[in-house]
Amino acid sequence: MNMQELIKPLIQKNDTKIVMVVLDGVGGLPNASGKTELESANTPNLDALARESACGLHIPVAHGITPGSGPGHLGIFGYNPIDCQIGRGILEALGLGMEVRETDVAVRCNYATIKDGVITDRRAQRIPTGQSKKLTERLQNEIKKIDDVELIFAPGMEHRFAVLMRFPDALKHDAAMINDTDPQKEGKAPLTPVPLSKNAERVANIAGKLINLVHDILKNEEKANFILTRGFSNMPHIPDFDEAFGLKALAIATYPMYRGLARLVGMDTPALEGSVEDEINFLKQKYDEYDFFFVHVKKVDSYGEDGSFDGKAARIEEFDKLLPQILLLKPNVLVITGDHSTPALMKGHSWHPVPVLINSSYVLGGICNAFSERECIKGELSILPALNIMPLALAHAGRLKKFGA
Amino acid sequence: MNMQELIKPLIQKNDTKIVMVVLDGVGGLPNASGKTELESANTPNLDALARESACGLHIPVAHGITPGSGPGHLGIFGYNPIDCQIGRGILEALGLGMEVRETDVAVRCNYATIKDGVITDRRAQRIPTGQSKKLTERLQNEIKKIDDVELIFAPGMEHRFAVLMRFPDALKHDAAMINDTDPQKEGKAPLTPVPLSKNAERVANIAGKLINLVHDILKNEEKANFILTRGFSNMPHIPDFDEAFGLKALAIATYPMYRGLARLVGMDTPALEGSVEDEINFLKQKYDEYDFFFVHVKKVDSYGEDGSFDGKAARIEEFDKLLPQILLLKPNVLVITGDHSTPALMKGHSWHPVPVLINSSYVLGGICNAFSERECIKGELSILPALNIMPLALAHAGRLKKFGA
Repeated sequence: MNMQELIKPLIQKNDTKIVMVVLDGVGGLPNASGKTELESANTPNLDALARESACGLHIPVAHGITPGSGPGHLGIFGYNPIDCQIGRGILEALGLGMEVRETDVAVRCNYATIKDGVITDRRAQRIPTGQSKKLTERLQNEIKKIDDVELIFAPGMEHRFAVLMRFPDALKHDAAMINDTDPQKEGKAPLTPVPLSKNAERVANIAGKLINLVHDILKNEEKANFILTRGFSNMPHIPDFDEAFGLKALAIATYPMYRGLARLVGMDTPALEGSVEDEINFLKQKYDEYDFFFVHVKKVDSYGEDGSFDGKAARIEEFDKLLPQILLLKPNVLVITGDHSTPALMKGHSWHPVPVLINSSYVLGGICNAFSERECIKGELSILPALNIMPLALAHAGRLKKFGA
Repeated sequence: MNMQELIKPLIQKNDTKIVMVVLDGVGGLPNASGKTELESANTPNLDALARESACGLHIPVAHGITPGSGPGHLGIFGYNPIDCQIGRGILEALGLGMEVRETDVAVRCNYATIKDGVITDRRAQRIPTGQSKKLTERLQNEIKKIDDVELIFAPGMEHRFAVLMRFPDALKHDAAMINDTDPQKEGKAPLTPVPLSKNAERVANIAGKLINLVHDILKNEEKANFILTRGFSNMPHIPDFDEAFGLKALAIATYPMYRGLARLVGMDTPALEGSVEDEINFLKQKYDEYDFFFVHVKKVDSYGEDGSFDGKAARIEEFDKLLPQILLLKPNVLVITGDHSTPALMKGHSWHPVPVLINSSYVLGGICNAFSERECIKGELSILPALNIMPLALAHAGRLKKFGA
């Protein structure tokens, strides 16, 4: 029995509030000073909170597995990231701010150059974003439908864009099992989209027609006269957050990708721009309307990805200064964690367990002296799978009945 | 492969003794002093033992899941509490001291008042226990059998009682899937027992006849002229303790419910009354006759449930004073733990991990300074599923062979 099946009959509603702050990529590794980003940052508020919270480290997917943003968030949202895999096409579409539906197949596309049947440039000489955008608008204008399938285009950076094929009816789970058409090397012919399962024939057929139509439209372009497609994928069937946990949830995130991930699990995801302070102001404004709040702090990860140890520490300090504003709301349960680690040392996501803190009236506390990797490991949560954070948050909010008599 | 399947081929018998003391609901949370019940209690013997034991915290069912007494005990007895769910009828029967067999269906009953086809009081105005007992005896005298099914009645408190339907042959696992007949509200007609699975038809038929027979017998009673039934359930198929672990086991418990739970896994469960000291005397008396002893200390939980922090701490101290008597027996393995936490702060069971100590000649020890939540978390067992306590106990007793060559 999986976790969601176990807790579903136990869920009871009440008027508690749960706030989950995700400091994207917060976990780190020591630099030459011997301290991690969290240990170097001056974080009096996080540290004081850790002292009176249940702390630990969570494993996003499994030991040694470095998660992408999708699996990282799904785990802390209480969805098994191994069972709920999100295709690359879907993630790309979410990252471009597209609204993806259950009847959609998403695919990542590159503009490319084709000559005499072979690809001479897989990236169309990296045409500028402005030009790419115009081409994509032209495609949208000229291709609105293929058979009974609606086509929705979204421009990306440089030669990249995404397409949604919106089918009129439900798709099988394996309806998008189609090979990439990118031959991976210049000088080769593009591949044709081949269905890798019986249920993928319909989508492969539309994809083939799309590629031909695009080539017809763009054939006189000097650089971008063809497209290569990758990551065909449709939406995994994921129960809504409300259905799974009995929580009306709001996502507070300024990056489209994270709103998209939250929308995938059925959170409300109003568009939002601005700073972390703007996010917290939005939290205050909407506090009475929801049970659960996902507050996403992106920049911590961005600096980690860039290898900027000090920049990452500074973003952590920035959040620490704002934390008292969240505490003033007195949420019944406050969870602070990350979706994965992004050690500046590694300039990318890593598999390292991620500090997590759960604050409520029902913790032991008094164990950890700070919110950091080496303090959290001592805590009462020890090391736990990310998937178990949600049932703990629900329990601390009094939202789970007793199991068995 | 589940744990029991894994260890079964490894089990070897020897003449070691394993004592498992269950301080019911022992885990707690800090009160205003900042200390938990275990931390406040003066427990020199438990603390000295913790210093030379393997310590940790166990999770009874799963993160965030608050276990009832059934799942709590099954886990520490080495049975997966999610796979072995015990119905409410069975638990009620066990709690009333009934001997439940594999061919039994158990159901909880209320005396109720019915008038013109609608229930006017779901609890028959909470008739006194003495009167209820007399009515139940009358029912037992007048209804001994329905078709080939033996009926066994047991009186409870006030308007409550339980009935076992003892079938002459084996039942399917879903034979008791029948709705409750309690309409949940006064002014409504009672529901009829409806089989919710094909295999439940036979039991539903007997249940319907029983309800009619009872009404015939009680129809002239002023208050208790009808019965409402809830929690139809039969015994889960659970391998005997001896079969699963190669241990001849004795349960030492003064409350019928806990003897019932032990009987469910095939332990010997002689009736016993008295204090914890009486239980320990019984342990001494029976020490040569068994391999495994489950010693249940109930009152720790009772005070926790009542919200009495000091009362709970006092019950822990009471056990601490008696502990040396158990140590004098020099069991090869001594396990001390609880079936779940019952923080006085929460006045009820909770999901918090439960301190556990395993003492044998084969531990690291020297890590924890006391038997408490915050000391045990440092220990060599860290946080572990309750299910893993039994294989550890067997290993420490030299009762598990090497796995693989």
